[in-house]
Amino acid sequence: MSELIVKAKKLKQAASQLAMLSTEEKNNALTMIAEALIAQTEYILQENEKDMAIGKGNGLSPSLLDRLQLTEERIQQIADGVRQVVDLPDPIGETIEEWTRPNGLLLKQIRVPLGVVGMVYEARPNVTVDAASLCLKTGNAVLLRGSSSAIHSNKALVSVMQAALKRSAIPADAIQLLEDTSRETAQQMFRLKEYLDVLIPRGGAGLIQSVVENATIPVLETGVGNCHIFIDDSAKKEMAIDIVINAKLQRPSVCNAVETVIVHNKWPYTNELLHTLHEKGVELRGDKQLAATYPFVREATEEDWATEFLAPILAVKLVETVDEAIEHIERYGTKHSEAIISKCKEHVEQFFARIDAAVLYHNASTRFTDGEQFGYGAEIGISTQKLHARGPMGLRAITTTKTLVYGNGQVRE
Amino acid sequence: MSELIVKAKKLKQAASQLAMLSTEEKNNALTMIAEALIAQTEYILQENEKDMAIGKGNGLSPSLLDRLQLTEERIQQIADGVRQVVDLPDPIGETIEEWTRPNGLLLKQIRVPLGVVGMVYEARPNVTVDAASLCLKTGNAVLLRGSSSAIHSNKALVSVMQAALKRSAIPADAIQLLEDTSRETAQQMFRLKEYLDVLIPRGGAGLIQSVVENATIPVLETGVGNCHIFIDDSAKKEMAIDIVINAKLQRPSVCNAVETVIVHNKWPYTNELLHTLHEKGVELRGDKQLAATYPFVREATEEDWATEFLAPILAVKLVETVDEAIEHIERYGTKHSEAIISKCKEHVEQFFARIDAAVLYHNASTRFTDGEQFGYGAEIGISTQKLHARGPMGLRAITTTKTLVYGNGQVRE
Repeated sequence: MSELIVKAKKLKQAASQLAMLSTEEKNNALTMIAEALIAQTEYILQENEKDMAIGKGNGLSPSLLDRLQLTEERIQQIADGVRQVVDLPDPIGETIEEWTRPNGLLLKQIRVPLGVVGMVYEARPNVTVDAASLCLKTGNAVLLRGSSSAIHSNKALVSVMQAALKRSAIPADAIQLLEDTSRETAQQMFRLKEYLDVLIPRGGAGLIQSVVENATIPVLETGVGNCHIFIDDSAKKEMAIDIVINAKLQRPSVCNAVETVIVHNKWPYTNELLHTLHEKGVELRGDKQLAATYPFVREATEEDWATEFLAPILAVKLVETVDEAIEHIERYGTKHSEAIISKCKEHVEQFFARIDAAVLYHNASTRFTDGEQFGYGAEIGISTQKLHARGPMGLRAITTTKTLVYGNGQVRE
Repeated sequence: MSELIVKAKKLKQAASQLAMLSTEEKNNALTMIAEALIAQTEYILQENEKDMAIGKGNGLSPSLLDRLQLTEERIQQIADGVRQVVDLPDPIGETIEEWTRPNGLLLKQIRVPLGVVGMVYEARPNVTVDAASLCLKTGNAVLLRGSSSAIHSNKALVSVMQAALKRSAIPADAIQLLEDTSRETAQQMFRLKEYLDVLIPRGGAGLIQSVVENATIPVLETGVGNCHIFIDDSAKKEMAIDIVINAKLQRPSVCNAVETVIVHNKWPYTNELLHTLHEKGVELRGDKQLAATYPFVREATEEDWATEFLAPILAVKLVETVDEAIEHIERYGTKHSEAIISKCKEHVEQFFARIDAAVLYHNASTRFTDGEQFGYGAEIGISTQKLHARGPMGLRAITTTKTLVYGNGQVRE
């Protein structure tokens, strides 16, 4: 039997035990994991060093090497993350709805674990622990499929977590790392419907597309955010400039950063906005009129409007009406996060009603599309699909339901 | 451009208009559809007659011909079904949750249409109207892909519905029938992520598997129900026999019918149960002991335990403990509907906690797993997957959410 099948079988077995555990038992196990990560810092760093050496040898870019690297401080942060998960309320067992039918049947819909979650992700080794702790908290077993460049780090993290679980109520088998990182085995994993209940890809567009294209297991798709901010003619100057700066520069490499700003041509402060952005080092790509007016604005191509730059680059477009802004967003947007800055109630209502996106903002930065910022405490990802969960996904996104029906002999007429 | 792409583009356009309509506008349109179906009965029957003639020529079985056939009465029932959808509460626009963050952001999660639903189904022409009315009620446009054997009936039904919509606020383009029923075009449809938001297959296991295997669009999987009833040693005689008879015979061809009965070997009425079933014409397949005892019980094969008979055939097994029953269900069940008949609270609790299924019953027939029986008013199908919706799916299952965030200049620290 292949490594994949052996581990999948263990996970399925572990999942049915794990589903029966109390919140306290799960929290105790998570606390032991946090402690073990700290206690084994030296071992984890030594294994991470192997990945770093191979990565350097393979010519990985400094930014990829930075994402791969663990330090004492980062391990401390990872362990703190696990402790934060301990503090979150456990959604398992909660009654979602309860109702009685005219024939006397009592129906009770409760929240239960999904079963076995398949995480598919790229280099960052912290995802190994983050994902495992969120899955265990919600009573799910987890198959971790990280990338080969982080294999030594991931093996070390998983072995430390498994050793900690051996002293807890959670079976150690509930966390498994797929060490075979070949493409063929990944493809096989994506179709392992008998053992896996959901796949969650986290990483670049290529990774996500490969999972969506090949999976027969349901996928929680996380993905691209080509987010827009529309500055209406009535927008306050400072508010608009602050929000754009924040949404572009606070962390340009993430999916909820803004990529195109659409400005009403009657807004009086476009000049100031563009100069401020330029001074802050933002590379600007504008429509014909803006490119002709400002020497530091390059003319945007068709592709620019559709691009998630993930960098300090911003496309800028002038429009004459809110309608034109909405049409642009409908055409190029990815249904992630879209904002309007305006004092006009009607325009906000139109914008909110007509734009199809996970999150819509009035007078706030798109950067708030995030599980912690939403108040979910933690996040397993940001869903860009419409089924099951849309937008930031907290613990409830990795649960399902059971309906318990209580009768006294009812049969169907 | 192919028929598929032309219609998909029209649907996407129609969906954004449809999403903005009020409940009243949608209900008026549905009422016009119901009236038009009645007014055009003669035309619909005449087109249905063409499918019937071709079906007979192709040697379709009497049961398939019966499913294909429309009559005046059946068209009346279809129109009544549309009127029932009018009477259902509209889930669109409802606030699911509303909360404020410490930074003053107000978040409001509301229910919105999915967009464009792709229905893939087999011969029954009534699905054409049922699916269309549920989709329109929830503000979704719908691409209908029925089978070639019902093509004349489906074309007639869709043209009648479209003509009715022309006199309503809903764009007539919101309902489209894919007339090209080739396999190749179906495969293309299952991957049309740019235009379709969800696929709902309704039909046999082959159809569903083909959709799941080939789709890149999220699927709401409906499917196989290998349902069990466990009769515990403490079960009341009459209650147990009534429930088994109902669950097996009230409608044997559906997914919530029982396929295997597991009996505690200390239950005193097995003899009476089996004789009653035999007298009622149920073909029995039992374990070794039962097959050796009763001349009318054939020994069950390994395959029988795993089969959804969809016919008056029942597998029967004796066990010594509730654990053994649970293990059998975990091994052969399809996580659809599972029942326990018992007076023992502990056994019921164990059964409910340990078995992973959409619906679990205590002292009631498995036949209640149904949208109407659950009180949802209508049903788009019964989900056998764990994401998005599990069990009977009412109107809410074909909706998604949007989060509206109201700020006054908030930026992320």
